[in-house]
Amino acid sequence: MCSDAAPQASANGPGIGACRCLRSDTVTGMSNTTISVGLLGCGNVGGALVTLVAEQNEEVAARTGLDLRIARIAVHSTAKDRGLDIDPSVFTTDAAAVVDDPSIDVVVETIGGIEPARELVLTALRSGKPVITANKELLANHGAELYEAAADAGVDLLFEAAVAGAIPLMRPLRESLIGEPIGRVMGIVNGTTNYILSQMSEHGVSYEAALAEAQSLGYAERDPTADVEGYDAGAKAAIIATIAFGGRVVAGDVYHEGISSITASDINFASRLGFVVKLLAITERVGEQNGQPVVAVRVHPAMIPASHPLASVRDSFNAVFVEGGAAGELMLYGRGAGGRPTASAVFGDLIDAATNKVRGHAGSIGTLVKPVIQPIDDLVSAYYLNLEVTDEPGVLATVASIFGDHKVSIRSMEQEGMGDQARLIFITHQARERDVRATLHELGSLDSVRRIGSMMRVVGES
Amino acid sequence: MCSDAAPQASANGPGIGACRCLRSDTVTGMSNTTISVGLLGCGNVGGALVTLVAEQNEEVAARTGLDLRIARIAVHSTAKDRGLDIDPSVFTTDAAAVVDDPSIDVVVETIGGIEPARELVLTALRSGKPVITANKELLANHGAELYEAAADAGVDLLFEAAVAGAIPLMRPLRESLIGEPIGRVMGIVNGTTNYILSQMSEHGVSYEAALAEAQSLGYAERDPTADVEGYDAGAKAAIIATIAFGGRVVAGDVYHEGISSITASDINFASRLGFVVKLLAITERVGEQNGQPVVAVRVHPAMIPASHPLASVRDSFNAVFVEGGAAGELMLYGRGAGGRPTASAVFGDLIDAATNKVRGHAGSIGTLVKPVIQPIDDLVSAYYLNLEVTDEPGVLATVASIFGDHKVSIRSMEQEGMGDQARLIFITHQARERDVRATLHELGSLDSVRRIGSMMRVVGES
Repeated sequence: MCSDAAPQASANGPGIGACRCLRSDTVTGMSNTTISVGLLGCGNVGGALVTLVAEQNEEVAARTGLDLRIARIAVHSTAKDRGLDIDPSVFTTDAAAVVDDPSIDVVVETIGGIEPARELVLTALRSGKPVITANKELLANHGAELYEAAADAGVDLLFEAAVAGAIPLMRPLRESLIGEPIGRVMGIVNGTTNYILSQMSEHGVSYEAALAEAQSLGYAERDPTADVEGYDAGAKAAIIATIAFGGRVVAGDVYHEGISSITASDINFASRLGFVVKLLAITERVGEQNGQPVVAVRVHPAMIPASHPLASVRDSFNAVFVEGGAAGELMLYGRGAGGRPTASAVFGDLIDAATNKVRGHAGSIGTLVKPVIQPIDDLVSAYYLNLEVTDEPGVLATVASIFGDHKVSIRSMEQEGMGDQARLIFITHQARERDVRATLHELGSLDSVRRIGSMMRVVGES
Repeated sequence: MCSDAAPQASANGPGIGACRCLRSDTVTGMSNTTISVGLLGCGNVGGALVTLVAEQNEEVAARTGLDLRIARIAVHSTAKDRGLDIDPSVFTTDAAAVVDDPSIDVVVETIGGIEPARELVLTALRSGKPVITANKELLANHGAELYEAAADAGVDLLFEAAVAGAIPLMRPLRESLIGEPIGRVMGIVNGTTNYILSQMSEHGVSYEAALAEAQSLGYAERDPTADVEGYDAGAKAAIIATIAFGGRVVAGDVYHEGISSITASDINFASRLGFVVKLLAITERVGEQNGQPVVAVRVHPAMIPASHPLASVRDSFNAVFVEGGAAGELMLYGRGAGGRPTASAVFGDLIDAATNKVRGHAGSIGTLVKPVIQPIDDLVSAYYLNLEVTDEPGVLATVASIFGDHKVSIRSMEQEGMGDQARLIFITHQARERDVRATLHELGSLDSVRRIGSMMRVVGES
């Protein structure tokens, strides 16, 4: 193909690259074009990718004319037996050499973490090599720098696997919905916490018991903090917000609360009131301020109506629910993790990047602006509140008057239990978070309120 | 931009076009590029597209550098007030003139039906204009001719709106999942029948009552045949099979049964046995024959487990469930019809086609082969069977022996009702359709079997 290809003129708009030379079996039009892939890391995802490429290569070649070859693989140890059917000479411990190798057409990064992944990805992009990465941490913290490097070099930076694993989400958001007036995106994007909450909800077990089971099944790490406290979902929320709203949102912009304080009784109350508890990554466009879009982005447990499509997403599955001004409600559902599902997303990106490389162009996430991030105090939502109170006349009146003082209006209330077990369960109308917090603060100082139990946002009601 | 652009060299592989000249406000790199759109038809979808382009144009321009203009609209009558905020001079009754107009960059076809849509689309493609269409009938019957014309001309033919309305489905199948070893795709792709079945299931009403309600709400046509007998879903099944498996499948290849013979009691039995009844469009890759893929493609009512993700798709919503060998289970859910949701899908395609046009290339659905279509008789499935029988000793033994003679093995049986109301409800193990039909044929000749009630395939069990 090399001999046929002339440089493409630079066209109008961002992210358009020059035609690059690729090897072809012959110079005839319909022969296969070989794409040499440099793979960084060969763990769960990298190993599954090697297998998937071997299994599917013939069919992909027949359909697309691309002959994908994993030409070099950078690993920590070349001695380890990975059980892969691949020539051992492709392995090296020198990741930089893989990126620099002029015979490598496309780089796939499955190392994870910030460094050296960031440096390797930047070097690859700057030398005109498309990059596919599954690295949410890297994108959520250094995305803007990477997107810019890709646009400057006119090459693809694709990352379908970084959010919600095998689910086609990034491509639909980047392409199908780029013109859609998206109002809100809500996702179950952490399988570990969804498994824990599903077990609590379906089997009535405690948080601790469900976590222990998730750990024994390998769904949760020994230190589960990143999952259960919402950090993992927060990184994904930042990436979703960036792509959905075209604004540079980083992990540090995301407000987050985890699920470790959710009790079996919260889940019971939710169920009796017709709700299911899910850990949601939510991002919304809430307005404009001085010409800049105002974006809310947060992760927290939420009560959603049992009839909501997200409510039936069980076990370790992920799903992302998009509220479009024209498209209406959309939901994309599937496996959010696991070597082979994640490798599937990487593989789709790899074929896309290879196709683009052969054609001498690249996709783009378009122009990104810096949005204003809405403080959590400004959130307007309905709230579930659970107060442990002394069981005596007049308590409800006192409590209700404090709600009223803070302009938090009550939609429903019921008393649960008697005596030492007495609780008041409230669902509020739409209220501002700062007012709800002020209400709780004042309630906490009352003698008749023994303890503020849980506070959970109620979302997804139509 | 014209003055900057040099022709792009033809690259290796199908569907690669030459760079075309487009107008730009200035010749600097970051100015907006005007794309003139010729719209054929201005009904529900076309009108909603005009509105959506007006609403979103500024934001799309900021993000992509594209200034989309609906420059000409072909309609039956220019006198009709469509309530659209657009210069009346854009309307014409001469559709061919819109397609031939050299100032038109992209053609959007929302006329529907085969002719004149086919001729207009072909003319546009052959003259190097990308086409976006929502026309399932056209694609399901003449797709191969159109895909070939697009590939020959090196321009885009995009049709996200033709199947499952606003749901991003075609692009994920064409791009994200092009390398995925897809085993089966099952979709609820007809909103009218899903509404009818949901009403029957949730409110216990008859088919006739639910249909009448669907008609009064405008979900069903006065003549509902195309929806309720599965023709509409069949056209969509053919398109899905083509894209998912890279094989030329046409509407005539699709086996179909509708929902008009489903009774309230079938739905009741299904519910008691833990199933939900849905009209499914199913396509599977079932093997190979002399080097050709064997593809099954059919539309019929089916019983699916209540815990299956498709079971919770209610009302007029659509969803498509993909079983991937690497990705695992995926589901894409949303609005399958309606002017604005359908226009949303057209709009996404329009931005994609315009971006590609500016960059001088085009997407491709890849090389299509001619698959072998599996006859319905060869289907292997579990079956629900409902027999009205005389209530006397020995009937079950006689019936069971006939099942056995045909090698159809029974998984569960229960008798319902007594005397004149006696029925036997069977669920079989996996059996071949021809054996089940032969069993039913022989059972029908027994004196003790008063009537063969329903036969429904059971799918989606894990």
